[in-house]
Amino acid sequence: MKSLVILGSTGSIGQQTLDVAAALPERFEVLGLAAGRQIDLLLDQVRRFRPRYVAAADEAALAARADALRTCGARVISARELSTLPEADVVVAATVGHAGLEPIVAALAAGKDVALANKEAIVAAGPLLARVARRTGARLLPVDSEPSAIWQCLQGEVGTPDEPHLATLVGLAPSGRAVARLILTASGGAFRDWPQGHLSRVRPADALRHPTWRMGPKITVDAATMMNKGLEIIEAHWLFGVPYERIEVLLHRESIVHSLVAFVDGSMKAQCSLPDMRLPIQYALTFPERVARPSVAHLDLAAVGALSFGHVPPERYPCLSLAREAGQHGGTYPAALSGANEEAVACFMAGQVAFTDVAPLVAAALDRHAPVWEPEIDDIRQADELARAVVRERAAAAAQPVSAVRAGAERSDAGAAGSA
Amino acid sequence: MKSLVILGSTGSIGQQTLDVAAALPERFEVLGLAAGRQIDLLLDQVRRFRPRYVAAADEAALAARADALRTCGARVISARELSTLPEADVVVAATVGHAGLEPIVAALAAGKDVALANKEAIVAAGPLLARVARRTGARLLPVDSEPSAIWQCLQGEVGTPDEPHLATLVGLAPSGRAVARLILTASGGAFRDWPQGHLSRVRPADALRHPTWRMGPKITVDAATMMNKGLEIIEAHWLFGVPYERIEVLLHRESIVHSLVAFVDGSMKAQCSLPDMRLPIQYALTFPERVARPSVAHLDLAAVGALSFGHVPPERYPCLSLAREAGQHGGTYPAALSGANEEAVACFMAGQVAFTDVAPLVAAALDRHAPVWEPEIDDIRQADELARAVVRERAAAAAQPVSAVRAGAERSDAGAAGSA
Repeated sequence: MKSLVILGSTGSIGQQTLDVAAALPERFEVLGLAAGRQIDLLLDQVRRFRPRYVAAADEAALAARADALRTCGARVISARELSTLPEADVVVAATVGHAGLEPIVAALAAGKDVALANKEAIVAAGPLLARVARRTGARLLPVDSEPSAIWQCLQGEVGTPDEPHLATLVGLAPSGRAVARLILTASGGAFRDWPQGHLSRVRPADALRHPTWRMGPKITVDAATMMNKGLEIIEAHWLFGVPYERIEVLLHRESIVHSLVAFVDGSMKAQCSLPDMRLPIQYALTFPERVARPSVAHLDLAAVGALSFGHVPPERYPCLSLAREAGQHGGTYPAALSGANEEAVACFMAGQVAFTDVAPLVAAALDRHAPVWEPEIDDIRQADELARAVVRERAAAAAQPVSAVRAGAERSDAGAAGSA
Repeated sequence: MKSLVILGSTGSIGQQTLDVAAALPERFEVLGLAAGRQIDLLLDQVRRFRPRYVAAADEAALAARADALRTCGARVISARELSTLPEADVVVAATVGHAGLEPIVAALAAGKDVALANKEAIVAAGPLLARVARRTGARLLPVDSEPSAIWQCLQGEVGTPDEPHLATLVGLAPSGRAVARLILTASGGAFRDWPQGHLSRVRPADALRHPTWRMGPKITVDAATMMNKGLEIIEAHWLFGVPYERIEVLLHRESIVHSLVAFVDGSMKAQCSLPDMRLPIQYALTFPERVARPSVAHLDLAAVGALSFGHVPPERYPCLSLAREAGQHGGTYPAALSGANEEAVACFMAGQVAFTDVAPLVAAALDRHAPVWEPEIDDIRQADELARAVVRERAAAAAQPVSAVRAGAERSDAGAAGSA
C-alpha cells in the first residue's frame, strides 16, 4: 500500500493519476491533494478519495469551503507541507510550468520519491534536482510517456556511466556505455501537415487539436511547436545521464512507440502502447512491478497495421534546436528557455502573437539571457522571470507583431533573391 | 575473457559466431570447434582461430587430416567431450536438427551455459533440458533473433511466475505475472505473396530465397511453412515459462522488430535491429553486458520509413497450428513434430514431395504418434525416429504424391459443394 500525495490534482495528469488510484484501491491510498484554483473540482476529489490533507494556491477560496472539508476529515495545509509529509511514499508532481518547482525540491530534500510529470521543473532546475536527489537518495520517477518509455527500455541494462556526474536519477544501475542513443518520438503536433507558409495563421483553437493525445492546452501547443520534445531532450539528459549529442528525435505520427533506446551493440528497444497517459502514470507508481488495471485497453499491432517513422524537418520546428542549444549551454539557459516558452505560449493563446512568433520570442529571451552557471533556486526563478519579461515586452511593444516584422524581412530577402 | 566451444562451427550460425569472436578478441577465446562433414572449412577455421580441441561427425575424414591439425596444435576429441570441457565457459549449440541434442544435454549436465541456436533440441526435449538445467544451475541463452528479442525485452522485469514449474531457463528473475503475452514476429517467408493455389508448385530453389534473412536451407523452408514460428512458440514456452495460450505470432514483413512482450499493464516492449544474426549471437555471449562491435550497422528507423504488422492467415500456414497443438499436448509430441518436419523438409528439398505436402506429412506423423509423457532422451530419440519413418513411408509410398491425394479430396469436396 503506497501513500500518494498529488500536486496539481485537478489538472489533466492529476485527474488521470486519481483514475489509476481508484482502479487499484488495494495498492494506493490518496494521502493529500493540492490544486490551484479549481476549488469545486478539488472538493469533488476530496469527497471521493478522502485525503487527510489538502492544499490550494487559492487559499481564500479553499478557506471559504472549510465546513465541507471538515465534514470529509481533510485538513488544509500548505503545498510545501503536503510535499514533505512523513507518511507520504510518493509525491506526484502533476503541476504544469515553473510554479511546481519548490514543492518538488522540498519533496526530494525530504527523501521522497517524486513521480515527475512536470518537465519544466527538471528542465529549469536539472542540476539542482540532481544534487538534492543524490544527497537524500530520493528518485525521480518519469511520468511522461517518452521518458517513461526510455526508463522501461533501460530496465535491466547494465554498464558503466561514461561520465561519472551523469548518473541516472531514476533508480537504475548506470547504463551509460551500453547506450548508444536515446530516441524520443514526436508526433509532429497539430500542424505537421499544414504548408509551412500557413503556420502564421494558426489560431489558438487550432493548436488544441492534438492528433493523438488528449492533453492540457500548454502541452498541446508545445507539441505543435515541438518545444515539448526540446524540453524532453533536456529532461532525458538529466534523468538518464546521457550526453545531449546522443539524444535524438524521431518523427512518429501514430504515437504508438513512445520512445526507444539504441544500444552500442546495434540492438534497439522500443516501448509502445495505445496513447493513454494512465499507463506511464501507473508504471511510475507500481515500479518496478507491473500491475493489471481492469479497464486497460491493450495494443493490437495487427489492427494498427503500420507504424511510420521519419526525420524531423528542422526548419519547421525551430524550437527544437533552441532547446537543444539551451541544454548544451547549461546553467540557467534551460530555465530561461522554459520560462520564455511558457510566456510566449500564453501570449499566443491570448491572441497577442502568432503561432510562428513563439520561437523568435524564445530566441530573443535567450539572446538577452545573462547566465548563472551553478544556479540555486533563486537564480532559476530570476532567469525564468527575466526571460518572461523579455517575451512580454516584445509581444506587447510590437506595434506590428514579431511575425509581421519577420515576414517583412522575408519579403526583402525574396526581393533580393529575385533581383539576383 | 570467455572460452567458447562451438558445436556446428561450419554452419551458418557457427560461422557468424566465429565472426563475432574474431571482432571481439579481447572478450572471447575459441577453445573448441565441432563440425559435421565440411572438413576443409573446419580446417580453415582451425588455422584461423587455433582452438585447442576439435571434433567432427565424419571422424575418418578428420583423422585423415591429423598432420595439419597437429601443426595447429589442435587435439581431436569427441563432440561429447568437447561439450563438457572444464575450461569452457559457454557452449554454442549451432547445430541444426535433432543430432545436436545429446551434446547439449551433456553440457547442461556439466553446468555449462549453452547459447542455443538449435531450436529443435529444446522443442523436442524441453522438459528434459529444463530438468537438467535446474539441477546444475546452467542457463540456456537464446541465440535466435526472436527468443533473443523476448529475452532482451524481459530484462529487469520482475514478478512472480504464475505456474511454479514454468520458471525461466534464461537466467532471469521470473516475470510470469508481469507478462500478458509473448509476441513472436514472422516475416511470412518466401511465398507470403504467392496466391495460395500456387503453393503446390513451389520448387526447392524458390524456397531458399528468404525475403529478409540469409539462413541455412532447412530454416529457410521452415520460415516459408512457418513451422519455424511454431517451433519458436514451443521454445519460448520453455525458455520463458509462459503458457501456450499467451504466446502469439504477428506477421511483420520487414524483419526489423524481432519480437515483443506485452505486459499486464498495457505496455509493450519490442526489440528491433537490422536483420543480422550476429547481433543476437553476440548478445548471448556478452550477456548481461552490451558491447560495441566495430563493424556493426545501426538501424535508422527514419530511413526504414514504415513497419507493417498483420494477422497470420491460419489457412496459409497449417504448420503453425500443428506445432501449437503438439506443444499443448506435451510429452513426446513436440519431438515427433520436429522430427517429422525435418524429414518432410528433406523430402521436399530432394524433390520427392510438394511444398504443400510438408504440413499433411507432419500431421500424419502426429496422428500415428504414441506419446510418452515424461520422456527420457531415448524416448525422445524414438519419437523422432518413428515420426521420420512415418513421413518417409508416406512420401515414398505415395505413387501419387500426398498433395495429389489431397487435391483429389478437395475436388470431391468442391463437387459436393457444387451439388449442394
